Amino acid sequence: MSAKTTYKWIGSSPVRPDGVDKVTGRANFGADHSEPGMIYGKVLRSPIAHGRIQSINLTPALQVPGVLAAICGDDFPDADAVQGMSSGESPADMRDIARNVMARDKVLYHGHPIAAVAAMSPEIADEALKHIQVTYEALPPVLNLDQAMAKDAPLLHEDQITRGLPKKPTQASNIAAVLNLKRGDLETGFSQADIIIEETYTTPTAHQGYIEPHAVIARCNEDGRAAIWCCTQGPFVVRSLSAQVLGWDMGRIKVTPSEIGGGFGGKTTIYLEPLAVKLAEKSGRPVKMVMSREDVFRATGPTSASRTHVKLGMNKAGKITAADVKLECEAGAFKGSPMQTACMTALTCYDLENFNITGYDVVVNKPKAAAYRAPGAPLTAFAVESAIDQAAKRLGLDPIDIRLNNAAKEGTVAPYGAKFPPIGLVETLQAAKAHPHYCAPLKPNQGRGIASGFWFNAGMQSSAAINLNENGTATVITASPDIGGSRASMALMTAETLGIPYADVNAIVADTEAAGYCDVTGGSRTTFATGRAVIMAAEKVIVSLRERAAALWELKPEQVEWRDGQAHPDSEASAGADIKPLSLAELALSAAKTGGPISAKASLTAQGAGGGFGTQICDVEVDPETGKTEIIRFTVIQDAGKAIHRAYVEGQLQGGAVQGIGWALNEEYIYDEKGCMQNASFLDYRMPVALDLPMIDTVIVEVPNPNHPFGVRGVGETPIVPALAAVANAIDSAVDARMTDLPINPPKLLKQLSTA
Amino acid sequence: MSAKTTYKWIGSSPVRPDGVDKVTGRANFGADHSEPGMIYGKVLRSPIAHGRIQSINLTPALQVPGVLAAICGDDFPDADAVQGMSSGESPADMRDIARNVMARDKVLYHGHPIAAVAAMSPEIADEALKHIQVTYEALPPVLNLDQAMAKDAPLLHEDQITRGLPKKPTQASNIAAVLNLKRGDLETGFSQADIIIEETYTTPTAHQGYIEPHAVIARCNEDGRAAIWCCTQGPFVVRSLSAQVLGWDMGRIKVTPSEIGGGFGGKTTIYLEPLAVKLAEKSGRPVKMVMSREDVFRATGPTSASRTHVKLGMNKAGKITAADVKLECEAGAFKGSPMQTACMTALTCYDLENFNITGYDVVVNKPKAAAYRAPGAPLTAFAVESAIDQAAKRLGLDPIDIRLNNAAKEGTVAPYGAKFPPIGLVETLQAAKAHPHYCAPLKPNQGRGIASGFWFNAGMQSSAAINLNENGTATVITASPDIGGSRASMALMTAETLGIPYADVNAIVADTEAAGYCDVTGGSRTTFATGRAVIMAAEKVIVSLRERAAALWELKPEQVEWRDGQAHPDSEASAGADIKPLSLAELALSAAKTGGPISAKASLTAQGAGGGFGTQICDVEVDPETGKTEIIRFTVIQDAGKAIHRAYVEGQLQGGAVQGIGWALNEEYIYDEKGCMQNASFLDYRMPVALDLPMIDTVIVEVPNPNHPFGVRGVGETPIVPALAAVANAIDSAVDARMTDLPINPPKLLKQLSTA
Repeated sequence: MSAKTTYKWIGSSPVRPDGVDKVTGRANFGADHSEPGMIYGKVLRSPIAHGRIQSINLTPALQVPGVLAAICGDDFPDADAVQGMSSGESPADMRDIARNVMARDKVLYHGHPIAAVAAMSPEIADEALKHIQVTYEALPPVLNLDQAMAKDAPLLHEDQITRGLPKKPTQASNIAAVLNLKRGDLETGFSQADIIIEETYTTPTAHQGYIEPHAVIARCNEDGRAAIWCCTQGPFVVRSLSAQVLGWDMGRIKVTPSEIGGGFGGKTTIYLEPLAVKLAEKSGRPVKMVMSREDVFRATGPTSASRTHVKLGMNKAGKITAADVKLECEAGAFKGSPMQTACMTALTCYDLENFNITGYDVVVNKPKAAAYRAPGAPLTAFAVESAIDQAAKRLGLDPIDIRLNNAAKEGTVAPYGAKFPPIGLVETLQAAKAHPHYCAPLKPNQGRGIASGFWFNAGMQSSAAINLNENGTATVITASPDIGGSRASMALMTAETLGIPYADVNAIVADTEAAGYCDVTGGSRTTFATGRAVIMAAEKVIVSLRERAAALWELKPEQVEWRDGQAHPDSEASAGADIKPLSLAELALSAAKTGGPISAKASLTAQGAGGGFGTQICDVEVDPETGKTEIIRFTVIQDAGKAIHRAYVEGQLQGGAVQGIGWALNEEYIYDEKGCMQNASFLDYRMPVALDLPMIDTVIVEVPNPNHPFGVRGVGETPIVPALAAVANAIDSAVDARMTDLPINPPKLLKQLSTA
Repeated sequence: MSAKTTYKWIGSSPVRPDGVDKVTGRANFGADHSEPGMIYGKVLRSPIAHGRIQSINLTPALQVPGVLAAICGDDFPDADAVQGMSSGESPADMRDIARNVMARDKVLYHGHPIAAVAAMSPEIADEALKHIQVTYEALPPVLNLDQAMAKDAPLLHEDQITRGLPKKPTQASNIAAVLNLKRGDLETGFSQADIIIEETYTTPTAHQGYIEPHAVIARCNEDGRAAIWCCTQGPFVVRSLSAQVLGWDMGRIKVTPSEIGGGFGGKTTIYLEPLAVKLAEKSGRPVKMVMSREDVFRATGPTSASRTHVKLGMNKAGKITAADVKLECEAGAFKGSPMQTACMTALTCYDLENFNITGYDVVVNKPKAAAYRAPGAPLTAFAVESAIDQAAKRLGLDPIDIRLNNAAKEGTVAPYGAKFPPIGLVETLQAAKAHPHYCAPLKPNQGRGIASGFWFNAGMQSSAAINLNENGTATVITASPDIGGSRASMALMTAETLGIPYADVNAIVADTEAAGYCDVTGGSRTTFATGRAVIMAAEKVIVSLRERAAALWELKPEQVEWRDGQAHPDSEASAGADIKPLSLAELALSAAKTGGPISAKASLTAQGAGGGFGTQICDVEVDPETGKTEIIRFTVIQDAGKAIHRAYVEGQLQGGAVQGIGWALNEEYIYDEKGCMQNASFLDYRMPVALDLPMIDTVIVEVPNPNHPFGVRGVGETPIVPALAAVANAIDSAVDARMTDLPINPPKLLKQLSTA
C-alpha cells in the first residue's frame, strides 16, 4: 500500500454529521434514554477503604415502599468462576472486574459497590440504601506505594503472588507484577557518560475527567434477553464483560451505545451495566442507573499515581550513554496499573544502546485504575523528558538538539523489541525548531519547555459495512462510538474511496445486533483500524460496481476501471467504442436489474498502527509571589501520518495537551488517612477550563503510515504524553525550579521558590 | 442447486424469537413508540367523494391554542414533479401516491386527505381540524364499474388516457388500462366443446383487515435528517416513497419498522409517513399519527371490487377446449387495480390451447386499491373455479378429476408466457383426492366444494448480514419485517447452513440505516428471497471459517471441509495426521488472531421464486331457514416447496383460507349513493372470528423449488386464492344454489333459495 498525496476529501474539515444534534441538545447521551415503566437503580458503596464483609441484609431495603429489587454479590456467579482476561487496550482480569463491579468477601476502596437497589424513584432508591444492613471487619487501609510495599503491609489479596519474577515467590504480596526490559550494559554505558542525572519523579492519581458520568438503562425481557443502553467507548466490550460477570450467553445481550460525553479510556470497561441488568431481571422493569460526579471520582478508574526513579548518563556531545528507569505504579484495588505500557514507552523516543527499565504494579486501597489516554506513558515521559531537560541545561545544549541527537527513527529497535517502520519523531523536532514559537522572545519570569512523547497506537478488531442507497448515496455502519469525530472520518474515507461527495455518505454508529464486531474506540485506533475496515468495504463495493458495469457493457470486470465515482471501460475496451462512463448513482439506481442491492462488509484485526510521536513547546509565566503558573503559549507538533479530518486531528492535539497541562499543574486525588477521597467534585478536583488556557497551537506533521491506504496514524493519545514534562521544563526555564512532584500547584511551587 | 432431503433444523417448529415479547405485550407496534416532546397529528379528510378543492384556509386552525403546525397539499412538491413508478409487488405511479397521500386540486374519495395538523394533544388536533376552512366544487361521484365506464361518465382524471389499447385514444377515460392475453383460437376451441358454461361473477371491495391500524412517529432534526418509526411491510419502501413525495434525499431519512400487527399487502405503501415528517419539520417536534379503524377503512387501500365474465368450453372427457375471461376491476381513485395479476393468474392452473383474457382497470371514487394477499388472483379464481365446478356438475365428473385432466405441470407454458419448472398442482390435487376429508360422509344441507389456485410468488431484492459472536453464537440481520415468523425461518436457515443450534442464532429486523436493502415483506417472497440472502451470507461465513481453520492447520482452504458446524481437514489432508476438527465456536473465539471478526453480507435480486399451487376442500352446512352458511370442515393443501418452519407454513395456509372464507361469506364495503362508506368499523364490516370457523386442516406438499437451496416456495398468498370458489362450490353442493355474487351472506342466499 502506498499513500497518494492528493485527495478530494481526505484532509478537509467538513461539518461533523452529529454536530447539529449535539449543539441543539437533541443528541441522546447515556442518561437521556428512557424506557416505559422504567425504575431507578442506586449503588450502596463501601464507607471504608479496606475491610472484610461479614454480613449483608437486604431485607429492610426491600421493605421500603416503592423498592422493587435489591442485589449484592450473592446475586452474581462466584467471581472465581469468571475467568480469563478482557480484551482491549488495557486487558484486565475478568475475576477482578467481577469483584470490582460488586464486592464479594472484601471491600477494597472507599466507594467499592456492596449492594444495589431499584425503586420507583431515585429518591426512594437513595432512602432504601440507608436500610441495607452491612457489617464489616475493618482492616488497615494501604494508601500509597510505601505502605503497600512495606514488609508487613496488610495484604489486599491474600492469594496474590507477584508475577514476572525469575522465581515464583512463596508469599503473597501487594506487588502484583514486576517487569524488566533491558539492553546492553548499564555499567559500560554510565562509564562512558560525562554527566549523570539522577532524580525521582512522582505523579498523582488523576481522573480522565469526562464531562458525562457513567449511565445505563437495562431491560430484561421475559425470554431472558437483555438490552443495555449506555455510554461507552465499546458496546461489544460492554456486551462481553457484562455477559461474563452475569454468567450469560453474550448472544442474549444487545448493547446500544449512546452518544458519549468523553471517555479518554475511562469508558472502556464496565461498572453499572451488570448491576442494572440484574436489577432489571429481578424487578421485571427497565432500570436506569446514573452515577453522580462523586461516584465517578470515588469508584471509577482514574489513572495511577506513580514514582519513577531515573538515572541518565550522557556524554558532552549530548548522546545518552545509559538510562536506568525504575517505575512504581499504583494499580488501585486490583492489579493492572499501566505499569507495563509505562515501561515500554519510557525510553522509546530514543535510540539507546544501554538501558534498564523496571516496573512494579502495586495494589493499594483506591479505586481500580482504568485506561487514561496513552495509559502509563505520561508517567515515565514526565520523568525521562524532565531528566533530559536537566541534562541539556547542565551541558548547555539546545533541548531540541539533544533530542535530535538521540531520536528514534526508521530502523531503530524500540526498548520493547519492535523495529520501527517510518516514524515522525525527527520531523516533529525539526518542525519545533523551525517554528516561530521556538525563537519568540520571553519576558522575566517566563520560560520555555520542550518535551517529546510516544504512543504505540492500537490496531485490534474492527468491522464496517457499506450500503448504497438507490439514489447513489451511501450508508457506512460501524460500532465504533464517535468520540472525536469518527463519523466524519469514516464518511470522508468512504467518500474518497468511492469517489462520491462527503455529503452523500451517512455514517452510522450501530448497536451490537446491527453492526459487526468492533473493539473499543480507544488506543487511537479508530481512524486507523475501523477506517481500514471502511476502506476495505468500500473497495468491495467498487468490485461490485465494476462487475455490474461490466455486465451492462458486456465486458469482463477487469476491463472496467473505477475513477472519480464512475466506471470507465479500460483503454483497450473503450478503443473505438463509444461507451459513456456509468456513475455510482446510475449503477445504484439499476442495481435491482444487475444483481440486487449493492453493499459490502469487511472485518479485520488491524496490524501496523504506526507509532505516534510528538513534540511540544510550552511557554509559562510564573508569579513569584503566589507560585501560580500561567500557560502563555503552547504548540503541539505531532505526526498524524495523514490527517483525515484536519480540524478533528487538531482537536485531539489540543485536548491531549490540555489534559496534560491540568495533570501537571493542578489535578490530583487527595485522600484522608482513612482512604476517603477529600476532593471528589469538579469544584475541588481542579481541571483546567478555557479561561486557564491560551489557544493551543498545532502543527500536523505527516509521515505516512505504510500500513494504512491513506497513511493514517492514530493521533488521540500521543499529545498528552509530552505535556507534563513540557510544563515542568518551562517552569524550570522560567524560575530555575526543577519540580519533580506533580501537580506543580501554587503552594508547592511557592515553597520551592522560597527554599531555593 | 439441489435440495437435500434430511435436515437438522429445517422443517422443525421451534418457538419464534419474538414470541415471548408478543404474548407479554412488550413488543412495540407502530403506535407504541414515543419520543420526548412528541405531539400528535391528525388528518382532515374529504367529506365528499368527488370534487374540486377551491380553497383551503389553515390559519384558523393554527390559531387554536396548542396547535403547532398545519399543512395541506401546498406544503409538498408539485405532484407532477414526482415521477416514475414505485417498486414492489404492486408498483404504483409515484405521482398518484403523492396525490393520494395529500389531495391537491381534487378530492377523489370520501376520506381523501386534504390537510393535517399537529397539536399538543390528539383532542386539540381534532378540534383544530374543525377550524380548517375548505371550499369545494362538488362533482357527481362515480361509484361502480357501470357508472365509471358509461359514455358520459364524469371523469376522475381529465388527463387519463386508456393505456394498452392498440391505438392510443384521443379522449380521456375512467378506464386507465386494458390488458389482453391470448393463445390459440377461441372459435376453434368452443367448436370442440361439448358444453359451454357462461356466467358473470362479482366480488365486492374488501379490506385486508389487519388488526393494527397504520401508525407513525416522525422526527426531523435541525440538520434536515428525519427518522420515521412506523408499522410497515417494508421500511426501505417507506423511505423511498416518502423521500419522493417530500422531494427529499432518501439518504437523509431513517425508517425503523415497528412490530407489525398484520399487513397482507396493505402496508406496502405509505399514507401518514410524509405527512408526519412534514408536520415534524414545521413544528420542530416529533409527531405521532395513528389512524382510527374508520380512517383505515375510508382511506387506506382495500382490494378491488370486480366483475368477471367467463365462457368455458369443455368436452365430455372434461378437457377444457376454450376459455374466454373478461375482467373489470375497480382501481379506486387512482389507476392500479390488481387487474393485471388477476388476468395473468386467471387460467394459470390449467394447460390450455385456446384462451382469451381481457382486463380493464377502472377508476372510481373510492379509496385507491392496495395490494391484498395474492392481489387480483382471488377475483378471477372465484370466477374460473366456480365455472369449472359448474362444468363438472353438468358433465357428472369428479371436480378433482376434471382439474387433474387440465392441470398445469412442469413444462406447461402459463398464459403469461412463463414455462413452468417443477410445480406441485397435480400433487395437491392427488393429495386432496387421497385425503379422508374428501370421502367423509355429508348430512342434509351439507355440501363439499373443491377449488385450486395459483400465485406467482415474488423474488425482488433482499440483503442479509451474519455476524459471529465471540462465543460461537450468530446474529443474522435483515430488513424484512417479521409478519409470519420470518425471524424464526431466517434463524433456522442460518442454523442449518452453519451447522449450529437454532437457539444460538439471533435473528434481527433492523432499520434502513443498519441493514442492507430489502424489498417489502410481501409477495410470499421473504423466506425464499431474504432466505436466499441469508444462506448466501452463511455460505460466505463458512468460506471464512474454512480459511481460518486452514491457516491454523497450515493447509489450503480447499483442503478444509465444513460439516456439522465444524471444520474438518479433507481425507487427503487428514490421512496420517492427527487433526482434531475445529468447531465454529472455537474458530469464533480465536477470530481476533486469525484475521478479525467473522461476518458476511449478501444481497441479490432473487429470481425463480417458484409458483405456488394449492387445492382446498370446503364443507359447509346451510341453514335453509336463515340462509346462514356454516363452514364445518376445511382442508388446505398446498405445495410449499420445502416448509422451513412447519407450524408457520400451516399458519399461513390457515390464515389465507380464513381471509378467503370471510370474503366469500360476509366482507364487503357498503356505500351510500354519495360514496360514503356505511360500514367503516369491525362491528359492521364483518370479518370471521375464531367462533365462526372450524379448525382449518392443512396438508403441506413438498415439490422442491430448484431455485432455492432448501427448495422453498412462497406460501403466504396462494391459500387465499381458491377459498372463495371452494366456499361457493360447497354451497352449490349443499343446497343446489350457484352463487355468483359475493359475499354469499344470509339475505342473499335466502333470496336465492326462495326463488329457486
